[in-house]
Amino acid sequence: MSKLPDITTNFPEWYQEVIYAAELADQAPVRGCIVIRPYGNAIWDEIKTVLDKKIKDTGHENAIFPVLIPLSFIEREAEHIEGFAPELAIVTHAGGKKLEEPLVVRPTSETMVHHMFAKWIKSYRDLPLKINQWANVMRWEKRPRAFLRTSEFFWQEGHTAHETQEQALEETLLMLSEYVDLAENYLAIPVIQGRKSASEQFPGAQATYTFEAFMIDGKALQMGTSHLLSQNFAKSFDMKFQNKEGQMAYPYLTSWGATTRLVGAIIASHGDQNGLVLPPRIAPIQVIIVPIYKTEEQQAHVFMIAQEIVAQLKKAGIRAQCDTNDQMKPGAKFFKWEMRGIPLRIELGPRDIENNVALVASRLGGDKQTIALDQLHHQIPGMLETIQHQMFDRAQQRYAKMWHKVDKLAIFGKQLEEQAGIYQTGWCKDAACEQLLKPYTGSIRCLLENSHEMKECFGCDMPAVVDVIAAKSY
Amino acid sequence: MSKLPDITTNFPEWYQEVIYAAELADQAPVRGCIVIRPYGNAIWDEIKTVLDKKIKDTGHENAIFPVLIPLSFIEREAEHIEGFAPELAIVTHAGGKKLEEPLVVRPTSETMVHHMFAKWIKSYRDLPLKINQWANVMRWEKRPRAFLRTSEFFWQEGHTAHETQEQALEETLLMLSEYVDLAENYLAIPVIQGRKSASEQFPGAQATYTFEAFMIDGKALQMGTSHLLSQNFAKSFDMKFQNKEGQMAYPYLTSWGATTRLVGAIIASHGDQNGLVLPPRIAPIQVIIVPIYKTEEQQAHVFMIAQEIVAQLKKAGIRAQCDTNDQMKPGAKFFKWEMRGIPLRIELGPRDIENNVALVASRLGGDKQTIALDQLHHQIPGMLETIQHQMFDRAQQRYAKMWHKVDKLAIFGKQLEEQAGIYQTGWCKDAACEQLLKPYTGSIRCLLENSHEMKECFGCDMPAVVDVIAAKSY
Repeated sequence: MSKLPDITTNFPEWYQEVIYAAELADQAPVRGCIVIRPYGNAIWDEIKTVLDKKIKDTGHENAIFPVLIPLSFIEREAEHIEGFAPELAIVTHAGGKKLEEPLVVRPTSETMVHHMFAKWIKSYRDLPLKINQWANVMRWEKRPRAFLRTSEFFWQEGHTAHETQEQALEETLLMLSEYVDLAENYLAIPVIQGRKSASEQFPGAQATYTFEAFMIDGKALQMGTSHLLSQNFAKSFDMKFQNKEGQMAYPYLTSWGATTRLVGAIIASHGDQNGLVLPPRIAPIQVIIVPIYKTEEQQAHVFMIAQEIVAQLKKAGIRAQCDTNDQMKPGAKFFKWEMRGIPLRIELGPRDIENNVALVASRLGGDKQTIALDQLHHQIPGMLETIQHQMFDRAQQRYAKMWHKVDKLAIFGKQLEEQAGIYQTGWCKDAACEQLLKPYTGSIRCLLENSHEMKECFGCDMPAVVDVIAAKSY
Repeated sequence: MSKLPDITTNFPEWYQEVIYAAELADQAPVRGCIVIRPYGNAIWDEIKTVLDKKIKDTGHENAIFPVLIPLSFIEREAEHIEGFAPELAIVTHAGGKKLEEPLVVRPTSETMVHHMFAKWIKSYRDLPLKINQWANVMRWEKRPRAFLRTSEFFWQEGHTAHETQEQALEETLLMLSEYVDLAENYLAIPVIQGRKSASEQFPGAQATYTFEAFMIDGKALQMGTSHLLSQNFAKSFDMKFQNKEGQMAYPYLTSWGATTRLVGAIIASHGDQNGLVLPPRIAPIQVIIVPIYKTEEQQAHVFMIAQEIVAQLKKAGIRAQCDTNDQMKPGAKFFKWEMRGIPLRIELGPRDIENNVALVASRLGGDKQTIALDQLHHQIPGMLETIQHQMFDRAQQRYAKMWHKVDKLAIFGKQLEEQAGIYQTGWCKDAACEQLLKPYTGSIRCLLENSHEMKECFGCDMPAVVDVIAAKSY
């Protein structure tokens, strides 16, 4: 029952310790890798369930592509290999022999998927082709941090092919909007969406769209990306189809992905000094009942009523559990389930049962209320929804406080470096000005393509072409 | 619309072609690997759903361990490295550098999991520890065959630790029985369960239990295994706990796994000359409606009624779909969905609708019956259950015909080699006699530990200690 490091003054250590204390993950004996423990995996599974449904509802089908990709595939698209070369893990030997051609553990699967697309796509009738895969990928990580940056991570990667550029762009933006919905309405994390600058694009893409969130410490986290690949990869992989006019043409491609980083985003967006705070819609356990008793007779009775409540809540669609461990005291259980961020705790003792009530405590605000036993399954669904919205609102209020509209880097640079936060400013679109953020450990997180509030570029005297968000980032 | 190779005279080619024709999988550009296409993945997902529920209902939790394992881990258990060394894929370079220690792409995860267990298990209170992971694994394959033997394959691997040998054995046999239930009651595949001979055990295990099925061609397929690891690995990984008496002790371990090979088992157990035949309980689509029409007006009306039927069937818990593709003729659709093994096809035309009926055709027997439209959702669930049982019975009858109780290898060896089939015989338990099967391309598939019908060993003059199943295998 050790206390977590101070979340305000020592956020990085708080982040690491809460992951161990809530048993989300553990360090693995391979550089930059983690073991995702059952509770961490359960959160990821909830996210996967929501996202998988979105992916299927928008007409995509899941498939599985090999984890090993010939190195020559990665090299075929020039920007792609340049971007990924430093992060590759390479298999040189297999089956007791040196391989004729090295294989890489996939850092992403565009090249493998496009090789197969080239076999499958023959005519416009085969388009659109909309495939997704849930997979592990590997990008050798120099500064690992559990969930946020790990050498191996887990994600879905969508890959689609279309007849026209318009359709591909529509797909790119549709999947971005599905991600934003996931982040805001399930993870309760407000995001800023926009296009990446050319220097931050996916290697080989024509345009990359991102959705960025801001953690408790004011640093930005790229939550996921959606890429308009256009025809680059199609040309590299000789992927052609006969169009409606009977001519051979290259299809327009997209890809988009979101990762186990989303688990890290939940931790670092909502946590507090007592541990995790999970948004109800993705909490693997939404309600935990802690039974309180002294005698064995009381125990039997309280357990029985608790199980009835669990059954009723489950019938109402609530993920509820009773903590029947009889080696732990109630206080230790409160501590444990607070650390794990369970949205609602029900305290249930013999006197409560006599009075036909239970005490329901909210993890978010800590406030408690007494509710009649036969009202629990009526009231709790609404209480969970309220918490869900409160969490989103609280995060939005946090953003409002750290959001600065600023003119010139010379003025806001030091503040950005020292206090982090969200800096909306103007940019001339020159990469040289973008580079000026580096000494302040900042970067352009995204272009706000429809926003032109700023008159001058933050870095030079040229007019601003577009507003951007500058920030420190993970 | 090409015909499949003859299933009776040319089973291996039939098997390969049906996989392409039903779009289950495609060859990948990496030796021994396949791409699992959406329809193949959908079947695997149905199997996963059933098996994952069984795993959770028996008290196991899912976690994720790294795909890369230090080579030194694999080497720590002597039999383990001896068994797996020839099949390893090895990462020697990562992040632009040669690694100090090579990493292997996991062939199985005992060593990684046990390293972590040694950190997590301190006291008898931490036991039993019951973990499962769904993962990709890699064993370099010399003679690949889609789903049955691939270099990369997909599976779940359960890993548990217990206080006593009895508890570990109980777990080993419990999970074997869950697998048998999956095979027989969901995949409709009868299996023979038993213990593996010492030479066929999992490298490092004390005992391996298997469930074996027999394919259409009379060859055995190992469907999955459950291992009593006992204390071997615990000792190699210095995994100790304080027992109830306050002493330090090694826990008793188990592991058990089933793979994408199960998809291959379904194909090779139930298929026929027209393609796949899927057992209803794991068919991703259980009912396909093929609308029949000539005019656009008819099309609109038939589609509308078809969608109503789909909605009603879905409400009754049936996975139903209407094939609304208007580029294909009904005949081509019949062919397509037969190839994909959909259990029931509904043919629906304007005249049927006028008469308030539809024609329902069974994939298994091909028989058709006319059913009133408002009775479809009442009758179809029962029809699917009947097909499920018929498929199991049909497979059992096939086994009965190929099951021979035989005395001496000198007599049945040639027959085993030339006709495959199931050969129940007696064994003295001497490995030298087991070796005598090799020239006949046979092996001992499992020991029938409770069966002692045979008096003499098949290979020598010694008394038989136990009955065994000898067969050719995949």
